[in-house]
Amino acid sequence: MKALVLLSGGQDSTTCLFWAAQKYGMENIAAIGFNYGQRHDIELDYAAKICQGRQIPFKVVALQNFDPSSALTNKNLEVDTATPANAPPNTLVEGRNLLFLTYAAIHAKSIGAKVIVTGVCETDFSNYPDCRDIFIKSCNVTLNLAMDYPLVIETPLMWLTKAQAWQLAESLGVLDIIKTETLTCYNGIPGQGCQTCPACQLRQKGYDNYVRDKKDI
Amino acid sequence: MKALVLLSGGQDSTTCLFWAAQKYGMENIAAIGFNYGQRHDIELDYAAKICQGRQIPFKVVALQNFDPSSALTNKNLEVDTATPANAPPNTLVEGRNLLFLTYAAIHAKSIGAKVIVTGVCETDFSNYPDCRDIFIKSCNVTLNLAMDYPLVIETPLMWLTKAQAWQLAESLGVLDIIKTETLTCYNGIPGQGCQTCPACQLRQKGYDNYVRDKKDI
Repeated sequence: MKALVLLSGGQDSTTCLFWAAQKYGMENIAAIGFNYGQRHDIELDYAAKICQGRQIPFKVVALQNFDPSSALTNKNLEVDTATPANAPPNTLVEGRNLLFLTYAAIHAKSIGAKVIVTGVCETDFSNYPDCRDIFIKSCNVTLNLAMDYPLVIETPLMWLTKAQAWQLAESLGVLDIIKTETLTCYNGIPGQGCQTCPACQLRQKGYDNYVRDKKDI
Repeated sequence: MKALVLLSGGQDSTTCLFWAAQKYGMENIAAIGFNYGQRHDIELDYAAKICQGRQIPFKVVALQNFDPSSALTNKNLEVDTATPANAPPNTLVEGRNLLFLTYAAIHAKSIGAKVIVTGVCETDFSNYPDCRDIFIKSCNVTLNLAMDYPLVIETPLMWLTKAQAWQLAESLGVLDIIKTETLTCYNGIPGQGCQTCPACQLRQKGYDNYVRDKKDI
């Protein structure tokens, strides 16, 4: 096994899965997902379906004790509909990507994978500190030191806009799969989703821009 | 709250708890422990007792899915009685300290603590990669970036021998507490322990050296 992909079942991570499959070969990739009490945990069913059809090993790690102050893991809180100025939205889950990457690194070492692929992106989500490139670089060094194991974290979406992420899906030949078989919506509706939550709005806006950019060419 | 101490109930972390109490004041420290399926999980009872008597808040985080290849978390494996040359003993739990520090950092931020104290030590355990000073330094930066929060990790035992750790307990006025009210033994026996497992042998050797060094002065 060469590469382990962090797979949530959403647009970004599923695009990364196919990116890794093209780079390393479908038979050389594995996936890992996390059940951390997220309100849209049905996303993991979509991740599992994508993997099942392609014989990609998919491990789901159950995590307890996640941030009760986040609207993503506390269903009693309302999800922010707009991003506050100079602060992360209330869907931030403190430490989430570091925990995910640590569990992924532990699993990667156990299956002999030297590459971890994650769909974090600095372009559209700059208020999430653990989506920043500088965090990923530091985390890469920390993981190598923690386990004395030379992993490389790859982030194909880091500098892409959402429109460019759709373009990437198209160039990988999986546009329809990403459009219909992934789930990004905080309310758990696949494909185009509820069209009202912030995740759906961002996804739709990116898609509209992608379609517009195509016409411009 | 000023400092959060990683507390396992063993000699090292309990000494760190009193070190932090002296530095920051007993009323300004909190503790965090982890139940990760360790064979000697009774150590957490000793940690809780130490905290209860001193009104130190103590949070225990339950973690699942820990390394099944480690003799510390898989009770079907025998604990190595000697450290292999150039390799960690089979009590290594991959990624453990990074996970512990990440959960600690999340908790520290939620209670407003800016300092994390951990008893990791490079001197006696050089084959555990996640006890090295270079890992801790890298981890400190990664935690700061992951959460956009200026934590400082303090490691009072990093360069001490086990004999010097006993000396530190004496200078803090807690030698008897550390001797009798902590649990280091992999077989779950407090104080002097079973005297045969590697953890007990290391603890006893350190104590013998401490007593010998005292006589030399």
